[in-house]
Amino acid sequence: MSTDGFIFDRVTFIGIGLIGSSLARSVRKTKTARHIVVCDINKAHRDQSLELGIADEITGDFLEAVQDADLVVICTPPGACGDAAAAFAPGLKEGAIVTDVGSVKQTIIHDVSQHLPSGVHFVPAHPIAGTEHSGPKAGFAELFEGRWLIITPPAGTDEDAIAKVREMWERAGSNIEFMDAQHHDMVLAITSHLPHLIAYTIVGTADDLGDHLKKEVIKFSASGFRDFTRIAASDPVMWRDVFLNNKEAVLEILQRFSEDLTFLQRAIRWGEGDKLEELFTRTRKIRREVVEANQD
Amino acid sequence: MSTDGFIFDRVTFIGIGLIGSSLARSVRKTKTARHIVVCDINKAHRDQSLELGIADEITGDFLEAVQDADLVVICTPPGACGDAAAAFAPGLKEGAIVTDVGSVKQTIIHDVSQHLPSGVHFVPAHPIAGTEHSGPKAGFAELFEGRWLIITPPAGTDEDAIAKVREMWERAGSNIEFMDAQHHDMVLAITSHLPHLIAYTIVGTADDLGDHLKKEVIKFSASGFRDFTRIAASDPVMWRDVFLNNKEAVLEILQRFSEDLTFLQRAIRWGEGDKLEELFTRTRKIRREVVEANQD
Repeated sequence: MSTDGFIFDRVTFIGIGLIGSSLARSVRKTKTARHIVVCDINKAHRDQSLELGIADEITGDFLEAVQDADLVVICTPPGACGDAAAAFAPGLKEGAIVTDVGSVKQTIIHDVSQHLPSGVHFVPAHPIAGTEHSGPKAGFAELFEGRWLIITPPAGTDEDAIAKVREMWERAGSNIEFMDAQHHDMVLAITSHLPHLIAYTIVGTADDLGDHLKKEVIKFSASGFRDFTRIAASDPVMWRDVFLNNKEAVLEILQRFSEDLTFLQRAIRWGEGDKLEELFTRTRKIRREVVEANQD
Repeated sequence: MSTDGFIFDRVTFIGIGLIGSSLARSVRKTKTARHIVVCDINKAHRDQSLELGIADEITGDFLEAVQDADLVVICTPPGACGDAAAAFAPGLKEGAIVTDVGSVKQTIIHDVSQHLPSGVHFVPAHPIAGTEHSGPKAGFAELFEGRWLIITPPAGTDEDAIAKVREMWERAGSNIEFMDAQHHDMVLAITSHLPHLIAYTIVGTADDLGDHLKKEVIKFSASGFRDFTRIAASDPVMWRDVFLNNKEAVLEILQRFSEDLTFLQRAIRWGEGDKLEELFTRTRKIRREVVEANQD
């Protein structure tokens, strides 16, 4: 397993959207697999994979797709991972590795693991990377460069399988971190899921305004709102699944957020400027820490 | 009033932060004023204005600052505009023009106008531009290029005064729009004030987490949260004043937002994926309109 040798003979991508196609491009570019199979229920996406040169072989048949695969990467929306696993599991060879890229980990681990035969290794993973665009054409090999890849292996996961998945992501340029699945889901609820929910909400609120006002909101979308619209343009099905599958953590952090917002609402209503200024000064410090931690 | 001639002999900036210093740089660069006076209660900011070459003259005395000024640009936080006007108004010459750059317009028009002597023209204006950085050193002449400048003149405002202020901003590269002050405050409540309030809230919520979790939130700040921290790093005093001075519009839009968020919260709790997907699909369309309208 050296950086100029293949890690896998045959890799199968189940689902080929933004993340799948970006990883496939990287796998191709870094010579990580000799042969790439793409399986997607969307024929247009399969065809595009061939045209883009990221697939050697395409199919809509799950069992056929994973035949002889050394690695299967599930890149469907989170809510579809379990059904996909149920469909392809009987076709897996002994010793095959299965991994995923889902933004929630506990439910995916539960949904996928139950279908996998013994002798197959599941390495749950999540690349913290993405754009507001979707589909195989939106992908690019550099998407994961300098980004975190979090692996959340259940106790007893095969070390060799973990090492191979890790190596694939390191070749894609990711920084690797290990985390407990439950902890992952709480951290991501705060850093990613709640911000997306809020952005969707505020853009939806604007969409419900009268036509004249809405037109002006779009025209004069100052920096704040414009940033929110970008976040709120992310893939609808993927994000629907994220919220449904990370329900507990999202609802918990949402409750805290709502309390904090109500506190500020009350401070505005009663003209308590000191409370506002105190918070706004604290949040500025957080930004400094984020910039230092991420060279943003 | 041609583009290669001075519009004003003497321009005075009251307050020299990010916006003031950016406009002063543009005024200098475009030869819009022969002489620039900077007045700020912060001595360090006054001194920096001299060092940066954007002031010909500095003073902490409001009356001295506006002596013989053809144009006075109030660039203080919104809540300080009224007091500043009260302090400098007695020193204004007949025919002087006063303008401002505040993010709220109704309260500033009220607070400033009451102090101005007759024969002085007030042209309220708001450049929709900014960064999360503050202070005179953070400014740059190009900040307003391609950005909206909204003028909200009360009925009967002197046309010649409006034309001169407009010309100054056109030289800075702004696109000019006229709007009723009340309407401006509602549009900005949606596009800018609410997004900032939300960003401040969510970053504050994260700040209140236990130390271990907070550290990881900073480390793994995915695209959503990182964007919010940038917005939540904006000037605390300026934003305190925005919320206190645009209370009605902010509270109204905040109420709508809270209802919409509660609707989504309930949909997540009850697993109603169709409601989530429907909204997320609608918001994606808004993004397309914003991109088309702003070439973002």
